[in-house]
Amino acid sequence: MADSTRRDEQVRATRKALLDTAERLFAEHGVHAMSNRRISEAAGQGNNTAVGYHFGTKADLVRAIVRRHAEEIENIRVGMLADIGDSTDLRDWVECSVRPVTRHLAALGRPSWYARFIAQVSADPALYALTEEEFFGASPSLRKLEDGLTRCVPVLPAGVHTDRAVMTRHLIVQMSVERERALADDTPTTRPTWHDTADGLVDAIVALWQAPVTTGAPTPK
Amino acid sequence: MADSTRRDEQVRATRKALLDTAERLFAEHGVHAMSNRRISEAAGQGNNTAVGYHFGTKADLVRAIVRRHAEEIENIRVGMLADIGDSTDLRDWVECSVRPVTRHLAALGRPSWYARFIAQVSADPALYALTEEEFFGASPSLRKLEDGLTRCVPVLPAGVHTDRAVMTRHLIVQMSVERERALADDTPTTRPTWHDTADGLVDAIVALWQAPVTTGAPTPK
Repeated sequence: MADSTRRDEQVRATRKALLDTAERLFAEHGVHAMSNRRISEAAGQGNNTAVGYHFGTKADLVRAIVRRHAEEIENIRVGMLADIGDSTDLRDWVECSVRPVTRHLAALGRPSWYARFIAQVSADPALYALTEEEFFGASPSLRKLEDGLTRCVPVLPAGVHTDRAVMTRHLIVQMSVERERALADDTPTTRPTWHDTADGLVDAIVALWQAPVTTGAPTPK
Repeated sequence: MADSTRRDEQVRATRKALLDTAERLFAEHGVHAMSNRRISEAAGQGNNTAVGYHFGTKADLVRAIVRRHAEEIENIRVGMLADIGDSTDLRDWVECSVRPVTRHLAALGRPSWYARFIAQVSADPALYALTEEEFFGASPSLRKLEDGLTRCVPVLPAGVHTDRAVMTRHLIVQMSVERERALADDTPTTRPTWHDTADGLVDAIVALWQAPVTTGAPTPK
């Protein structure tokens, strides 16, 4: 084996160790609580600047973690969207919102960290914008999904539509976190499988989008 | 003024400064990212052990922050529950779940930190259990609310019922965080007032509880 090939493999292994470690530490302790130095140390790198050398800033590191999950999620989503075509059934579009995430999490095995990592990133406005960009940039399918869903939901006041889209995202992320954490901690889960968790999410999200809109309700006593 | 009274007032002012500072720092950076020492410093205390002296452990500090909001929320909830009596309308019970939080947040003015503080605490299983205890211990009204709501929702498989209760909590917390953060950052909000945000939450949560349950759906392609 040529020296350069051996060095390439070593670099790949180091980068993987850094990404694995960062994902876990970010998921458990939050993105801001973990310095690049501490991640380098925890990944067993003698050189405390390993994160900086291999990835750059912390935002670049977060982006790299997002990226390594995005492709698989995108593949699932593209396949599901091809199956439903121009469906006018809201449920089909909600399925395409929920299952790419839950199937990816199921495929990661146990324990996984991705749901908790995404929850931490989503809680930070700057990092959230960055990952949105990363996702949308790499994913025309997300636009297609938004458009398809919008065609099937009632016409809503703009603020109500936005709120329900935000609620949808939070439900998917937070319920994935609940299940991921229970599996990691070996505590009981509410539903037997990721597929059942997704069923529950789809039921709730379809109902949420179809809910009648109350506006200007009198202030209750 | 007697010396002891003056000292009491000084202690009260110090404790308030520590609680205000801790609430803000926990909300912005997460509970684990902030040491008691850093909170003492940021609160302008010359003595870096001020948190330890006045509150004890970090868990005690979190508990003290929860407690100073709990009473006002409890008062709103008790009043609303008295008004609805033995209502059999699910919406009434959902109102009692949502409005005590949003009204409290509205009353805190701008900027507030409480929604983001609670989101950080809720993301930590140990701290979450601690605050649950703090809430339930101090609040028979929460049990009454749970019972009333359970009487009005369809009979659901246990895991589905639990999931929907968890979804309800996440929606209230996360949508409060979105609005609180937008107000603090002076970015546009999706709805004009906290009252409108609550309307949107109540609509969504009522629909979520009434959604038909899918079980054992065939795995979509």
